[in-house]
Amino acid sequence: MYRTNTCGELNETNIGQTVTLAGWVQTVRDKGFVLWIDLRDRYGITQLVFDEQRTDKTLLEQARKLGREFVIQAVGQVIERASKNPNIPTGNIEILVKKLQILNASLTPPFTIEDETDGGEELRMKYRYLDIRRNPVKDKLVFRSKVAHLVRNYLSQEGFIEIETPVLIKSTPEGARDFVVPSRMNQGQFYALPQSPQTFKQLLMIAGMDKYFQIVKCFRDEDLRADRQPEFTQIDCEMSFVEQEDVLNTFEGMAKHLFKELRGLDFDKFPRITYAEAMRRYGNDKPDIRFGMEFVELNDELKNGSFKVFDEAELVVGINAEGCASYTRKQIDELTDWVKRPQIGSGGLVYVRYNQDGTIKSSVDKFYSEDQLKKVLEKTQAKAGDLILILSGKADKVRSQLSALRMELAERLNLRNPDVFAPLWVVDFPLLEWSEEENRYVAMHHPFTSPKPEDISLMETEPGKVRANAYDMVLNGNEVGGGSVRIFDRDLQAKMFDLLGFSSEDAEAQFGFLMNAFKYGAPPHAGIALGFDRLTAILGGQEVIRDFIAFPKNNSGRDVMIDAPSSIHQQQLDELGIGLKE
Amino acid sequence: MYRTNTCGELNETNIGQTVTLAGWVQTVRDKGFVLWIDLRDRYGITQLVFDEQRTDKTLLEQARKLGREFVIQAVGQVIERASKNPNIPTGNIEILVKKLQILNASLTPPFTIEDETDGGEELRMKYRYLDIRRNPVKDKLVFRSKVAHLVRNYLSQEGFIEIETPVLIKSTPEGARDFVVPSRMNQGQFYALPQSPQTFKQLLMIAGMDKYFQIVKCFRDEDLRADRQPEFTQIDCEMSFVEQEDVLNTFEGMAKHLFKELRGLDFDKFPRITYAEAMRRYGNDKPDIRFGMEFVELNDELKNGSFKVFDEAELVVGINAEGCASYTRKQIDELTDWVKRPQIGSGGLVYVRYNQDGTIKSSVDKFYSEDQLKKVLEKTQAKAGDLILILSGKADKVRSQLSALRMELAERLNLRNPDVFAPLWVVDFPLLEWSEEENRYVAMHHPFTSPKPEDISLMETEPGKVRANAYDMVLNGNEVGGGSVRIFDRDLQAKMFDLLGFSSEDAEAQFGFLMNAFKYGAPPHAGIALGFDRLTAILGGQEVIRDFIAFPKNNSGRDVMIDAPSSIHQQQLDELGIGLKE
Repeated sequence: MYRTNTCGELNETNIGQTVTLAGWVQTVRDKGFVLWIDLRDRYGITQLVFDEQRTDKTLLEQARKLGREFVIQAVGQVIERASKNPNIPTGNIEILVKKLQILNASLTPPFTIEDETDGGEELRMKYRYLDIRRNPVKDKLVFRSKVAHLVRNYLSQEGFIEIETPVLIKSTPEGARDFVVPSRMNQGQFYALPQSPQTFKQLLMIAGMDKYFQIVKCFRDEDLRADRQPEFTQIDCEMSFVEQEDVLNTFEGMAKHLFKELRGLDFDKFPRITYAEAMRRYGNDKPDIRFGMEFVELNDELKNGSFKVFDEAELVVGINAEGCASYTRKQIDELTDWVKRPQIGSGGLVYVRYNQDGTIKSSVDKFYSEDQLKKVLEKTQAKAGDLILILSGKADKVRSQLSALRMELAERLNLRNPDVFAPLWVVDFPLLEWSEEENRYVAMHHPFTSPKPEDISLMETEPGKVRANAYDMVLNGNEVGGGSVRIFDRDLQAKMFDLLGFSSEDAEAQFGFLMNAFKYGAPPHAGIALGFDRLTAILGGQEVIRDFIAFPKNNSGRDVMIDAPSSIHQQQLDELGIGLKE
Repeated sequence: MYRTNTCGELNETNIGQTVTLAGWVQTVRDKGFVLWIDLRDRYGITQLVFDEQRTDKTLLEQARKLGREFVIQAVGQVIERASKNPNIPTGNIEILVKKLQILNASLTPPFTIEDETDGGEELRMKYRYLDIRRNPVKDKLVFRSKVAHLVRNYLSQEGFIEIETPVLIKSTPEGARDFVVPSRMNQGQFYALPQSPQTFKQLLMIAGMDKYFQIVKCFRDEDLRADRQPEFTQIDCEMSFVEQEDVLNTFEGMAKHLFKELRGLDFDKFPRITYAEAMRRYGNDKPDIRFGMEFVELNDELKNGSFKVFDEAELVVGINAEGCASYTRKQIDELTDWVKRPQIGSGGLVYVRYNQDGTIKSSVDKFYSEDQLKKVLEKTQAKAGDLILILSGKADKVRSQLSALRMELAERLNLRNPDVFAPLWVVDFPLLEWSEEENRYVAMHHPFTSPKPEDISLMETEPGKVRANAYDMVLNGNEVGGGSVRIFDRDLQAKMFDLLGFSSEDAEAQFGFLMNAFKYGAPPHAGIALGFDRLTAILGGQEVIRDFIAFPKNNSGRDVMIDAPSSIHQQQLDELGIGLKE
């Protein structure tokens, strides 16, 4: 061992002891007659001191030559510090160094290893091993490991068994976007990397394992939206002989445990909201309920033959931006431009301003009487000083547009406090959604999701109206988990594949092994998968997942540190029996 | 929830209660007037009873129709059992069923779901989800999860942080046998799946993480010897500011913890043996020391101009098969044939039999006097009734042949008791071994392994003699873990690459990012990786790893259950920019 103690543990109780420390040189402060070094390791910082009076001259000279990030070993005596630093646990002591060894020199790092660094994102990614030395990054990785540890212990306590499912599996066209792996031993054939262990966890239920979980890497070769990773980690779970209620309670329990242990927070029962209600009240299936600003439908108040745009709209809907009556014309114009951007795609923004003095001003006041506008203020429960913002159009579209505006306003009004947590279950998702692209229904969750028993009769008549026993755990406007009760009846599963446009041959080819397994006594089962990267980031008070991943990839799926992916040797291609297309 | 209790928990304290159970029909025993069902779930078996007196007739008829592996839900009253079964925890009670629901029917399974099944290996693999229902398989998966749980909690307790390293990394020709993954977003380029997180864990040490571990999937596309898997799980660990001794102590501590918790065994300090000594005494770098039968070198006794074969041999070496003097001629001939098989490749086997009556008989007694043979018996510490078996030839080869014979004998003599555990450290491995194939030295452990400081001077003069700070944890004749102190000095690392025949360009291309990282203050570090599948199997009293893996692949790397690998659609190939060779 190169040390007797870490750089984070010595304090006044150790005064007088001779210790050996090892770590990195954080800073050297040389006052000539005295020289201090902040020595850093994973556990903290301890100050080393050298001075003309007490330190051997050669040693002082040696210390003088140390540069930032040199790795050194120092032997010395713990002494009381003259000018104490109350901000760090070792701040009352320092080490009067007697012996110094350079374990490794360092070039000057390309950016400062400080909490606030001068390095840009790209540079820090290239030198990720230096970036991790910085507390904000290191702490996130330690935090992540703590979350995993808590999750594992909680679920084990609850009787779950962690079972590893294979990484080299079979490609299913339904999934598209599979990463594939050519097999050398079976030339011309490919494995696929799992987008999730979905079928395996269902097989484990058929296998009688009853309660399964796994913290597991999953893979998706998709165009990466900002803050997505081609490989990501899931807390994957499945239970047998349970109903939706049991799954919700179990994982609500897990989430509460995490809130308590990591943030010291207690929660009552998480609120629940149906998908339909979430869309109606927030225009979003993962509403951020840290703040209100709920949708208020204004068809009755505003569709009355006064204003053509509204009359022709399917839905007129507004939100109350509390306290925003003071917004200037410029600010409102800005918001109007914002909703008209192609990403949002609204035709325009109507406002009704309820001034502090009780007067009302609106962009549509030539179409509506003051009484009519007052009705809008009443319906939206506006108080003097509030600003009502209204969009109109096709119901689905306008809800999604207003949801975006609601989030944008919350951002501007600082309502999205990362240290406030508002968990929520969204339930009763539709079973299917219509894909314009493929001109067929696709599974909203996945093809194994069970319809609600009372809606099964609708499967043939109005498939779009069938609700599923599917649920999402939403936290601060993010879907952190999603799951469903699974179909465990073979006939119902066949009907589902039929609805999704699979021929029975296709279904057999792709899911034959699972369909076959259903013949041998599948128990009722249900499960959930939580996005571990996202959950960890949010619990850590952040929304960006990248820093919670030790070695993340960039938006092009590249690891710029190791420079992957990269070309491989012709010989490797030959052995795999594949070639590159021109 | 479909049940109030599991099938493993009810006993006489529950008598009188009305309960709901759910599970699989293990057996139906129909005596006409009374019918019993063994209902099974993950937790155990509970007996259900139906009889003409107490059971509604329709219900009895319904029960009569149940088949093996049907999934049912039964409501009934816990009653005392007339004929108790002391072998199971629920053996004192049974459930008088009042209500029965078939949750799912089942075809007759292709093999019996019993501890001793009639299904062959291939069939059981195809229906792995049914095989897992059998206790011997289920218990192994539960055991595996327990091992992982203990490892994680132990290492966390010791201050290790679990950090996930990427699965999509960069191919290095040194590794060969990488699985590669074509990138759709970066056409013509490939990721590789890690054979181990070696470079990443070293980068984490450079990053200051100090103590890292991970239970992680690794991948190797190699011709599968029996009982190897293309994807396997490692307990991967690395520590900073430590020496070999620290690593050995830490992981010896972990192993002791596992022995204690899983098998109730206490161990003193694990024995240590150098590689050279292991080869001399056992002809093997992973000796099974559950039994003795150590090598006895007999050059002095037998190379004396009497017998040409021995005179010409570099090494004459024997073992004492205690109590085997009773072996018949036929048995000895069998052993002789065994060592002459091409897999072993010995020229022949010489024996010296020390009969119970004190007489000596040997296959070479025409070449040696009785006195000379007595010397052999003395040297091998033979007692009357023992049998000395002797091989000769080139030292390396004969040691490996005799090692195989030693293991074969141990097998025949039942000395390899799977419930006896003999852990051992093998240390001081050679740094390099000569590859005839490549006509160069290759790293015995890997290119980052540090030579022993006292041997560094030999690197240029006698590279083959340089010993490394490398160590293996050996358990019952299996290498369960291996590691080394790493090179942390850039110049030494460059010298090592040089010895391995890398041009500096090659080294730069393949390990540039690591070499570069070494410029910025790499701490001294060392680590170990343990084969989790193997370790678990041995701790579980088995040597075959396959049953400890939920969904293993066969010797051709195929998952016969899901039929992977398989061909993929032309469209997928096109999107990846690759084509199949004719």
